Amino acid sequence: MKQFPYLIPERTVLIVGLGLMGSAYARALSETGYRVLGITPHQEVIDAALSEGVIHAGDTDVNADLIAQADIIVFGLYPTVLLDWVHKNSHLISPGTVLTDVTGVKACVVEQVQAMLPEGVEYISAHPMAGRELIGNEPLAVFRAATPDMFRGANYLVVPTEKNTPEAICLCEQLGRVLGFARVTRLSVEEHDRAIAFLSQLTHAIAVSLMCCTDGEGDVSRLSSLTGDSFRDLTRIAKINDAMWSELFLSNREPLLGQMDVFIDRFCALRQALADGDTEAMRDMMRRSTDCRRAFDRQA
Amino acid sequence: MKQFPYLIPERTVLIVGLGLMGSAYARALSETGYRVLGITPHQEVIDAALSEGVIHAGDTDVNADLIAQADIIVFGLYPTVLLDWVHKNSHLISPGTVLTDVTGVKACVVEQVQAMLPEGVEYISAHPMAGRELIGNEPLAVFRAATPDMFRGANYLVVPTEKNTPEAICLCEQLGRVLGFARVTRLSVEEHDRAIAFLSQLTHAIAVSLMCCTDGEGDVSRLSSLTGDSFRDLTRIAKINDAMWSELFLSNREPLLGQMDVFIDRFCALRQALADGDTEAMRDMMRRSTDCRRAFDRQA
Repeated sequence: MKQFPYLIPERTVLIVGLGLMGSAYARALSETGYRVLGITPHQEVIDAALSEGVIHAGDTDVNADLIAQADIIVFGLYPTVLLDWVHKNSHLISPGTVLTDVTGVKACVVEQVQAMLPEGVEYISAHPMAGRELIGNEPLAVFRAATPDMFRGANYLVVPTEKNTPEAICLCEQLGRVLGFARVTRLSVEEHDRAIAFLSQLTHAIAVSLMCCTDGEGDVSRLSSLTGDSFRDLTRIAKINDAMWSELFLSNREPLLGQMDVFIDRFCALRQALADGDTEAMRDMMRRSTDCRRAFDRQA
Repeated sequence: MKQFPYLIPERTVLIVGLGLMGSAYARALSETGYRVLGITPHQEVIDAALSEGVIHAGDTDVNADLIAQADIIVFGLYPTVLLDWVHKNSHLISPGTVLTDVTGVKACVVEQVQAMLPEGVEYISAHPMAGRELIGNEPLAVFRAATPDMFRGANYLVVPTEKNTPEAICLCEQLGRVLGFARVTRLSVEEHDRAIAFLSQLTHAIAVSLMCCTDGEGDVSRLSSLTGDSFRDLTRIAKINDAMWSELFLSNREPLLGQMDVFIDRFCALRQALADGDTEAMRDMMRRSTDCRRAFDRQA
């Protein structure tokens, strides 16, 4: 049985899924001196990662030897793909290995994964609150766009359950710091999913809905020649990976529906104040929003 | 009677209102070699603008001599203040002067201003689609934050009516180019107000409503330690000058209410798709939004 893998550079980290987040993890960890292995279905990504020294070894398929070498395994997979992978391959993971992930929803994933693991293998869930607008679905372009500066000034969330040991929680928090996140916060599965419904999924739902207000190609072309930065900023995230985000939305359906309803309520209150010509009610909301927003600026 | 003031550097431009936009105009025009005059109620702003060479002369009060010297007058005022100013002072403006503005709404302003002007004075409305997040209401801080790089890559809208001459329209378009805007577009008052309701006012209404979904100081403090960039981007404009924006909303009430209703419709459609577990309907909206958004990136 392996020793408990405290996060020292001698440790070997296997990244399963070299998409945007997995690739950025791989780059950050190999730059810091860790031995990084990679599994991803795209040969061109494995080739590029090897030639750039981002991974020490890799495979396009599940590779028992790579899995056996890993002290830590990071899953950079969609929720459903993660569940499927663990279901099929958990028997290959040796005791003492710590697993973590980058998944944006927790309630539908964490307990199921933990239930499938062999004795001595611990899964501690995390959520890096960082990303980049959609570059397209071309695997090599995504790999090349993934850089550790995505993590600078950003938040890293550690989401333990009752099944986690203090050592694994501590390891996961260390990982967030090694990756370069500005702030590491620990919270429960329920807190996480409620906060993420508001901070991440609701904002994407708003941006997508706003872009869908345009009326065909001619309208988009005309409007784009008139726009200012407020519209650009608000809709940056409207370029969205529809396969991933529809899955994230569905995986966190109840908290997200709840947050959408709160937003509709506030938006309709502002609409009503405008319809009534109620300047004071509008200014009240604007002052409150200004005060609250000051707390959210990114830390240096 | 003055000669028609084609936009050559010998011409004198009076800026009335040295707020964010007026100050950035003054800086851009004086840097390009124009003789710039300024009127603003704050002595400290006049002093700073004089000492930095941003204006050649200025006053905290309406000054008949400064007004008489101007070939072009730019109003950097809220809509109601602009109407009041012209009502009180239009008799001081000499024939041949061309007036323009930076106002974000047109229907409620342009015709009224035009109706108040003496013979030989022409008002051609414009809307610089640029800004900066709220710095506060301290006049000197606003003056210092106003820089011409706000205009780089941005859109400048010229909004003529039937009363405008081709010469004044041409002058106003030249002004947009001299100021450094990437693209100058001409459109009617109705087109302008409808487009701005969508591109500018609706986005501010969304950001304000979203910030108002938070539940008190403790909630804001907790959420800010968890957030990612999507939420920050979407709410950057939630720091808002409540006096100005409530006035802009009210001045464009009908078009804005219409756009708010379209947005509610689309947002509720996405909510329904999620409630129904209708993945394809969600992905359809996400793909449409991704396609449309590509057209809106800022020009280099």
